Amino acid sequence: MRTRFHENLDQLADRLQAMCLCNRDAIATATSALLGADLELSERAIDTCHEIDAMREDCEHTAVSLLALEAPVAGELRRVVTAIQLVGDLVRMAALAEHIANVARRRHPEHAVPETVRPIVAGMGAAATDMATSAAEVLVSGDPHDAAQLDGQDDTMDHLHQQLLAAILAGDWTGGTAAAVDVTLLGRYYERFADHAVEVGRRTVFMATGHSPDH
Amino acid sequence: MRTRFHENLDQLADRLQAMCLCNRDAIATATSALLGADLELSERAIDTCHEIDAMREDCEHTAVSLLALEAPVAGELRRVVTAIQLVGDLVRMAALAEHIANVARRRHPEHAVPETVRPIVAGMGAAATDMATSAAEVLVSGDPHDAAQLDGQDDTMDHLHQQLLAAILAGDWTGGTAAAVDVTLLGRYYERFADHAVEVGRRTVFMATGHSPDH
Repeated sequence: MRTRFHENLDQLADRLQAMCLCNRDAIATATSALLGADLELSERAIDTCHEIDAMREDCEHTAVSLLALEAPVAGELRRVVTAIQLVGDLVRMAALAEHIANVARRRHPEHAVPETVRPIVAGMGAAATDMATSAAEVLVSGDPHDAAQLDGQDDTMDHLHQQLLAAILAGDWTGGTAAAVDVTLLGRYYERFADHAVEVGRRTVFMATGHSPDH
Repeated sequence: MRTRFHENLDQLADRLQAMCLCNRDAIATATSALLGADLELSERAIDTCHEIDAMREDCEHTAVSLLALEAPVAGELRRVVTAIQLVGDLVRMAALAEHIANVARRRHPEHAVPETVRPIVAGMGAAATDMATSAAEVLVSGDPHDAAQLDGQDDTMDHLHQQLLAAILAGDWTGGTAAAVDVTLLGRYYERFADHAVEVGRRTVFMATGHSPDH
């Protein structure tokens, strides 16, 4: 039987999912902006990131209302606290997508990413988009199996990130130091975006079930 | 008159301060390790960061107990929620200090930072250490004036970060691409550490007074 507490927690999960889907759109658009040196797309991605930041307040308000109206204790209290921490991850994902879009905008009409490593960055963008999609699914299903999928996707991201760093450090890097700096930071942004998506999955399983997938 | 709620909130602030002072030690030690290419110091910094991570659970437990036992509402509830968000900032500061120590350890016995930019990195390390000290003071005083000091210190950090990037991108950079990658990431770690210290100040003022320093 669903209690009112669980219904409210489900509603909160729906709002968090909406934030996560916006993150998916933001990272996909930012990646297209970056790879196509497209100013309009970079601005669209930045707008989406600002929308996500505006959604934060609504989610935090909902979580605080849940605490105030339901006064949950023990495990249920920890689940609401976890939801508040989840908002923090989702807001950081948006900030990282915005950093990526900003690199594209700053370098326009030049390309920030040299042609030789564009396929790797495209792979990282696709992995990040997939991970935001998976995290959004977990936010509604609360299913530990869905969350476990994120670990595999994160391995893909780590592998691409290693490849990217290896390409910058290889003797035949002709991109120059400025592009090396940009690409190093871009790699870091994608990696952190992915870390937060994994954390969203982990925390969501705890929020939905009261158990961490690690234990 | 202090209520039991406020006494418990003060106790929580004390624990958060202890975490923040450990962050100050961690970033100071990590910076010394980096500038001196000192393996022992880098390992000591990493140990401190692991201690901070272990303190997280205690702080979160204290905050959740405060919610369960006092069932605060309205403004007081928001203040406990803010304390929980503060723990997140303090844990991230430790992770960033650990990244810096890890760069030193990975490059040992080589220097990760070329001699030409070592004074800038030393300045960033000093600024980060000062900011962790200020944030720890704010955590106990809750004083908006102390928190405002962090903004000035953050300007110093931003200025040094710009100098660091300019040095990497200058035509006379002789450090090579590998050092450019390391130094780019180090700059990002210090900058993020500083951002979190500012956020600790901002959130603490809200936790202590119920008002944000921005408004």
